[in-house]
Amino acid sequence: MSKGAPLAPGDAIGILGSGQLGRMLAMAAARLGLRTLIYAPESGPACDVATQTIIAPYEDEAALSELAARVGVVTYEFENVPAHTAQFLAARLPVHPGPTALATTQDRAVEKRFLNALGVPTAPFLEVDDAAGLATALAALGRPAILKTRRFGYDGKGQIMIREGMDVEASWLALGGAPCILEGLVPFTREVSVVAARGRDGSFAAYDVCENVHENHILALTTVPARMAAEAAAEAVAMAARIATALDYVGVISVEMFHVVDDAGERLVVNEIAPRVHNSGHWTLDGAVTSQFEQHVRAVCGWPLGSTGRHGRVEMRNLIGQDANDWAALLAEPGACLHLYGKHEARSGRKMGHVTRIFPD
Amino acid sequence: MSKGAPLAPGDAIGILGSGQLGRMLAMAAARLGLRTLIYAPESGPACDVATQTIIAPYEDEAALSELAARVGVVTYEFENVPAHTAQFLAARLPVHPGPTALATTQDRAVEKRFLNALGVPTAPFLEVDDAAGLATALAALGRPAILKTRRFGYDGKGQIMIREGMDVEASWLALGGAPCILEGLVPFTREVSVVAARGRDGSFAAYDVCENVHENHILALTTVPARMAAEAAAEAVAMAARIATALDYVGVISVEMFHVVDDAGERLVVNEIAPRVHNSGHWTLDGAVTSQFEQHVRAVCGWPLGSTGRHGRVEMRNLIGQDANDWAALLAEPGACLHLYGKHEARSGRKMGHVTRIFPD
Repeated sequence: MSKGAPLAPGDAIGILGSGQLGRMLAMAAARLGLRTLIYAPESGPACDVATQTIIAPYEDEAALSELAARVGVVTYEFENVPAHTAQFLAARLPVHPGPTALATTQDRAVEKRFLNALGVPTAPFLEVDDAAGLATALAALGRPAILKTRRFGYDGKGQIMIREGMDVEASWLALGGAPCILEGLVPFTREVSVVAARGRDGSFAAYDVCENVHENHILALTTVPARMAAEAAAEAVAMAARIATALDYVGVISVEMFHVVDDAGERLVVNEIAPRVHNSGHWTLDGAVTSQFEQHVRAVCGWPLGSTGRHGRVEMRNLIGQDANDWAALLAEPGACLHLYGKHEARSGRKMGHVTRIFPD
Repeated sequence: MSKGAPLAPGDAIGILGSGQLGRMLAMAAARLGLRTLIYAPESGPACDVATQTIIAPYEDEAALSELAARVGVVTYEFENVPAHTAQFLAARLPVHPGPTALATTQDRAVEKRFLNALGVPTAPFLEVDDAAGLATALAALGRPAILKTRRFGYDGKGQIMIREGMDVEASWLALGGAPCILEGLVPFTREVSVVAARGRDGSFAAYDVCENVHENHILALTTVPARMAAEAAAEAVAMAARIATALDYVGVISVEMFHVVDDAGERLVVNEIAPRVHNSGHWTLDGAVTSQFEQHVRAVCGWPLGSTGRHGRVEMRNLIGQDANDWAALLAEPGACLHLYGKHEARSGRKMGHVTRIFPD
């Protein structure tokens, strides 16, 4: 697959997925004079701001051909784009990030082997394909340990913590018998992430390291910069750069890491890679010179990356489910930057919006 | 007309006009979780980012009724909304700014009489309805003076400078015989504008005074803050507040002024009022906590006004016609924030986009 000629303003960008990430990508593309096409199996918040929409399954080759005919580049808002969809499109036009990045990050075992081969530390892990394999893995890694499906996990879905006394057979069945990995626990001090971008020309630019707090496995709070030594922050960014280069990556990439502080000092362990814009980068909409969404658009269009400069110390809080009912108070709070995703129903655990606050550094 | 109940996220806002101001208003509304409907006689850049579009003449009462049925509030991107359209809609749902603000600002003579009655200084002017009236007005105000149509002027259209030696009859015919005013020249040092907002509850918030440079009668450059004494800046904002209050205004209002510096000190003369977001406020997208577009949406929805705090010293340059061909260089310039409006053809004099640069204060 060629990386393609750069797009020009007025050209169209195709986005797979109709959720809030697609919505914010489409708005960033529009700001730069691009037209947008959202392709998704069902309508969603991104459709409200897109120039065009195609609602069709990811397996519909006629609809995918139509998409390929109408846009100059395809990107996506989520990592579970079916491999065949990505390959079908990549045979016809530039798809960024490319199918290799997708294939590597869709499978936890493949991703961790890729990372370890690069010399990037991960949690200890073993592949588990049945209950007997789980028993073996538990014996090797000890308890507690986390059983995770290799594919399709997000926001804590597709994983289970196996503690002392829990039945091995029942734990295995709890995840439906899908291929899994068992991960040993990392005794981390905090969770952090690197949100960065790589251009078609190999240029690389990272935002300052983000510190993340999860509640019920869902990101609740991101603060920037993360509390860590400058050397550790530099090492985190260097790891993200090494990963992006090895994947010949184009677009925004997000690398979630554990920051471990112990008697030996500070070190970083990569948890997972997201081949897309990331919730922990939403603060860049208000707190950085170039938002992660604009940065992604720049990269996939073959344009130069923008400045990742930060406007101050930044805090981004997700509005989950009923949190969004506080919109009126947030609008009234001086300096709070409110973002709502236009979702119709505030279901529990659903990301409805976020609010950013900026303080002097 | 009632000012209406506040809207809630998920509700829809109707915008009359499909140009770049409507586009940026629609994106600001989407960011706050609102749906958008663009109503215009012809498709334009705003349609690319709107949830819904109605393409119909402003006189089409069936289409206007459809608009009124689909949205919770109507606003507009330009001051030449026909009076009957505004009244038809205002009888059915809240229209902000209201028909009074429109009627006052659509006619230069009405606007200047309104300002003078409030004690707000304007250029000296006389109404002119025929060539004989023009001769009388020129005798009173002297030459050079500017003949302007009372209605439908913008970006230098509908006006002519009458200098020594120019024929009165020919000058009168040059503007097509439309009702006019003749304005005496104001010996100004610089042009400035106040972009401010008034909420449904009467709250008022102004951005720092903008300093504007026009080329060929089109805004070329805005810098903020304007170079003027603090007392003069405060007086400029106070004038805008007085105007907004007198109009019982809801939304963003822009007041263009001449800043006169002479032996008597500094003073301000109002040039014209725009009952809408304004080109000289585009810097707020990158340079202020709340953009003028979000501020307008907040006001017309009955929500609290946002912070008008400024991130630094800001410069906004319009990209007119072929200027937009520099997009690649602007994307490559560190810290430059590029906005393109998605217009298909870079005609001479056409506003294609703008670029904002922010410097430490």
